[in-house]
Amino acid sequence: MRKRFRQLGLSFGTLNPATKNLITDVPKVKVGHVTLFSDKPTIVRTGVTAIIPSEDVFQSPVTAAYSALNGFGKSIGLLQIEELGQIETPIVLTNTLSVGYAFQGIVQYMGSRFKFRTLNPVVGECNDGFLNDILYPSVNQKHVIEAIESASENFELGSVGAGTGMICFGFKGGIGSSSRILKKDRILGVLVLANFGAFDDLHILGTKAADHIKTGILKRQANGSIIIIVATNVALDSRQLKRLSRHSFLALGMLGAPGYHSSGDICIAFSTEKGYSEESRDFFDLLFRAVVECTYEAICDALFCAETTDGFLGKAQAMPTNWIRRLQS
Amino acid sequence: MRKRFRQLGLSFGTLNPATKNLITDVPKVKVGHVTLFSDKPTIVRTGVTAIIPSEDVFQSPVTAAYSALNGFGKSIGLLQIEELGQIETPIVLTNTLSVGYAFQGIVQYMGSRFKFRTLNPVVGECNDGFLNDILYPSVNQKHVIEAIESASENFELGSVGAGTGMICFGFKGGIGSSSRILKKDRILGVLVLANFGAFDDLHILGTKAADHIKTGILKRQANGSIIIIVATNVALDSRQLKRLSRHSFLALGMLGAPGYHSSGDICIAFSTEKGYSEESRDFFDLLFRAVVECTYEAICDALFCAETTDGFLGKAQAMPTNWIRRLQS
Amino acid sequence: MRKRFRQLGLSFGTLNPATKNLITDVPKVKVGHVTLFSDKPTIVRTGVTAIIPSEDVFQSPVTAAYSALNGFGKSIGLLQIEELGQIETPIVLTNTLSVGYAFQGIVQYMGSRFKFRTLNPVVGECNDGFLNDILYPSVNQKHVIEAIESASENFELGSVGAGTGMICFGFKGGIGSSSRILKKDRILGVLVLANFGAFDDLHILGTKAADHIKTGILKRQANGSIIIIVATNVALDSRQLKRLSRHSFLALGMLGAPGYHSSGDICIAFSTEKGYSEESRDFFDLLFRAVVECTYEAICDALFCAETTDGFLGKAQAMPTNWIRRLQS
Amino acid sequence: MRKRFRQLGLSFGTLNPATKNLITDVPKVKVGHVTLFSDKPTIVRTGVTAIIPSEDVFQSPVTAAYSALNGFGKSIGLLQIEELGQIETPIVLTNTLSVGYAFQGIVQYMGSRFKFRTLNPVVGECNDGFLNDILYPSVNQKHVIEAIESASENFELGSVGAGTGMICFGFKGGIGSSSRILKKDRILGVLVLANFGAFDDLHILGTKAADHIKTGILKRQANGSIIIIVATNVALDSRQLKRLSRHSFLALGMLGAPGYHSSGDICIAFSTEKGYSEESRDFFDLLFRAVVECTYEAICDALFCAETTDGFLGKAQAMPTNWIRRLQS
Repeated sequence: MRKRFRQLGLSFGTLNPATKNLITDVPKVKVGHVTLFSDKPTIVRTGVTAIIPSEDVFQSPVTAAYSALNGFGKSIGLLQIEELGQIETPIVLTNTLSVGYAFQGIVQYMGSRFKFRTLNPVVGECNDGFLNDILYPSVNQKHVIEAIESASENFELGSVGAGTGMICFGFKGGIGSSSRILKKDRILGVLVLANFGAFDDLHILGTKAADHIKTGILKRQANGSIIIIVATNVALDSRQLKRLSRHSFLALGMLGAPGYHSSGDICIAFSTEKGYSEESRDFFDLLFRAVVECTYEAICDALFCAETTDGFLGKAQAMPTNWIRRLQS
Repeated sequence: MRKRFRQLGLSFGTLNPATKNLITDVPKVKVGHVTLFSDKPTIVRTGVTAIIPSEDVFQSPVTAAYSALNGFGKSIGLLQIEELGQIETPIVLTNTLSVGYAFQGIVQYMGSRFKFRTLNPVVGECNDGFLNDILYPSVNQKHVIEAIESASENFELGSVGAGTGMICFGFKGGIGSSSRILKKDRILGVLVLANFGAFDDLHILGTKAADHIKTGILKRQANGSIIIIVATNVALDSRQLKRLSRHSFLALGMLGAPGYHSSGDICIAFSTEKGYSEESRDFFDLLFRAVVECTYEAICDALFCAETTDGFLGKAQAMPTNWIRRLQS
Repeated sequence: MRKRFRQLGLSFGTLNPATKNLITDVPKVKVGHVTLFSDKPTIVRTGVTAIIPSEDVFQSPVTAAYSALNGFGKSIGLLQIEELGQIETPIVLTNTLSVGYAFQGIVQYMGSRFKFRTLNPVVGECNDGFLNDILYPSVNQKHVIEAIESASENFELGSVGAGTGMICFGFKGGIGSSSRILKKDRILGVLVLANFGAFDDLHILGTKAADHIKTGILKRQANGSIIIIVATNVALDSRQLKRLSRHSFLALGMLGAPGYHSSGDICIAFSTEKGYSEESRDFFDLLFRAVVECTYEAICDALFCAETTDGFLGKAQAMPTNWIRRLQS
Repeated sequence: MRKRFRQLGLSFGTLNPATKNLITDVPKVKVGHVTLFSDKPTIVRTGVTAIIPSEDVFQSPVTAAYSALNGFGKSIGLLQIEELGQIETPIVLTNTLSVGYAFQGIVQYMGSRFKFRTLNPVVGECNDGFLNDILYPSVNQKHVIEAIESASENFELGSVGAGTGMICFGFKGGIGSSSRILKKDRILGVLVLANFGAFDDLHILGTKAADHIKTGILKRQANGSIIIIVATNVALDSRQLKRLSRHSFLALGMLGAPGYHSSGDICIAFSTEKGYSEESRDFFDLLFRAVVECTYEAICDALFCAETTDGFLGKAQAMPTNWIRRLQS
């Protein structure tokens, strides 16, 4: 894992990150990865990332909601999130054509611990078919269970877990994360699986990448997606979380993306606290700001932390060091 | 399979059914079942039902939309139906905890025939956990492929395919189907996977079941669901299909159901024809009437055709012959 | 006002109505009417009905949500109900082409009492253009203010207020209301403005009207609408109220309506209590049942209480006494 | 009207504007303003802007859809746009508390030309209550009719019509417009009523305003809104127009806005052509890019063209000339 955005002296926004600047700054939240990387029998560059909203999420589901900027995607579990406003399992991210195995992996994991006759596993996905032979069934239930069981407060960013084969704005992308302190002990955190964007669109901190980087770029047609997971320990109801999730996409605009036909741009937001927080303008303005800043910076971290990776159909470069230096100056 | 609603001399509504009074009266549509029924190593009463919108659905996706009356369900593929307004695979129905395998089965089936790097499998489900040991993974990808490959214009109703373990209004339920002629060669057809309803609520043709049937009823708490698949060869866009799908639920009211918290009541509607039909009041009034009549009668067929089945946690009776006689009189 | 459904010895459902069997059984809720009925300078058969969620609704907005079965309607204020999950003004019902005056009337009423720079008036409507010369601007801001100011716990049903010119299933329709006791002091109440339905579709208590009534029917093409207002003092959040509102439409199915292209079928639900009620299956099953029973019975009351009215383009008969007798037997 | 963004030598995006760089570059579309500006009997800084989708919009409604980023707004007519996917009247913009008069003005205008018994007027609004005494009823039906009747292909930008009293990012805002050529004679155009944004958030072309402008800024709490009207002569269905409308909001992110609790951010999109355009990735990528570029540049034009205006509660400055010079360099 390469240096993070802030380790490079860069920053975004006006709010302060919490201790780790990760989604796991929100108490109870944990993240685990399983990375699948091999060249035989075929080129495998994929994996699984599990976000645990809280250890007792089954017994005490977290309040939740989702939004889609562009719904060209195969996420599982969204219908019931909309109806019941809650999530009762870990959220698992993986590649597009493995979401069925991810579903069954969550069923198996939960079935071995709890008694139920129905369950709503939540699975998000992006398509890593450029670097990964996505038609080969690399991901199975065991990887899902392993990712869940390995979850902790510290986790890697970049080309790891579900992010192993992802591409973002023509560079190697993957997993990113960031957090913001809202007030006192109230935190909002974001994790992204970033696999979207055309190189020519990318602006970081107001600077257009294409004005400074002329070689080594993967100028594929943008056909990726982004999954944005938002966590907070502010007590919000599902309507409020839906508002929050809808605003996360403004960060994509801030990075220069006009949106793409074949993207599955999904944001799932949850609150680990029960109860109800009065809706005042000041506080929601703050929540909107936090979710946009976190999403922006999480995408930057996915870009800055990921390593150059070659794979099934070609190679995706890490963000070039000389451009990073320019951003620093 | 027991006698159908119309074979018993009963009928509903004012429009005429097409030839077979099945969803397959809509040209190009086919249906296939795989029934899983065994007592070892555990009690298996489940299966798979595949609806093929048209043989070339991948090369030429059908226009589609969906609605949910109550979204306590785990269907897969709905997000992309909403975004792109189309379906590009067979629609597969199975039990709640097997939808991941159904997803992967569709991927495998399509992958062996077509070249793609992404795909949006559509899967619907109900919970057969009363008659079927649902935590045991009975359904696998091969069953899905087999159901798709066996699809034809003629298919069984009642306790078959995905309907094998389903319960409806306290009786054995399962698969039902019906069709209506809209005008000339324009047909609307419905297939239901009926697994919802409390016995005390059931009214058929205005008669309350509980006033006439006093014994042998399964008075479980209603926690089931219904999946309604609507097909038509009227050229409709996805907005129009969404309107159509939303009205199908009125048939549940006509049968006496007030709706239930733990139901996943989902309607997926598709049109096999491209183009655009002008929206006039007369025609949409007719479409609404057809979808409600078909849904009502398809549920009746699911109830009338299903056979008494014992299973994992008890027994579900077929609709009693003496009540059928009363309805006939 | 003619006799109500229950005064005629009829009843629907399994739950018990509260004291008045009106929406105003929910504490704090009040209803007021202004009826406009004149023959000069043109035929006026219209009016205004105001539902006051609570006297301090501006200072302490009620939690709210809405659903549409068919959105061919011109209601005002729904967008902000969806976003903020609350209502901060009286809800005013009137005819389709007067909703702008209703909006301005609410602004004027509230502006004379409270200080604000923005406000979200909520207005519902049906089209009384058969009995009323709807293009003539009969309704103005003063009528709205008068309806609000006259609101009380007791109010008339049938051809009164916004219901003055409405038609339902070919009979004279209008305002109906009903309530149910959920448990102890928890009440759910409904008020409808009923202006929908084709005569041939009407079933009451399982009996088809067209089988028994052969003359004097208004066989117009159904092009009406229904506005359903649901109130409860169970503390529900807006997501829960949305679920509730969506199920109210099943009552339309129970009365035989398959839905109509040119209907604006809207349900607005609000809770007068803050806080959060745990969502258990038993309780939501009860809420769904209550909302369906109340909506059904409120529509029946609209039909039974309304008086024969002639107007702009013809005459709408009250429900015939001999059919009522048949229902009683 | 001050110089437009492009007249100052500035530009945004990669696509070319059409002839006038206005929404009226889309054939058939016209725009008219009525500006209300007076100091007696109270401070009036408001008005009406009418967008005519086509002269025969009533006889041949345009296909349409809408999206809301944040629904704290009082627009009228959206429910029926969603249900029927079309608009049948001019779209009228005005201040928040006058939308009822705007509704009635449209009814009156249409009623004097066409025969109907129902109509769905479409009205959008922003709150000009800082510069305008919004509780005073300045706008009436005649202004609406006058704005519609005065509509032409050429129209003013900035502090004019509904934009007279609007504020944007702490500067004087109002009406902006822009267009893009998609291919050959296919055009997409946007008109905005821009009344949103906090000064500290504003970035234009990657430059943060607050880094360069230190005095004379209106640092109010952001509580405004934006109405975005999108027109195109590409034949799109309502689902496709909804996708388009949803992406317009990314332009707000590009300008630095994270979204605000009390905003009504609404986009209404319509197509003047019937038929259906095949949905290919390339074309939708282009449509998304065009709508984002046009929305961005229209907001810039609203900011650059508006003149310093003092009013009810204070003064809003035009964008300072020295900052414009910096952007030019």
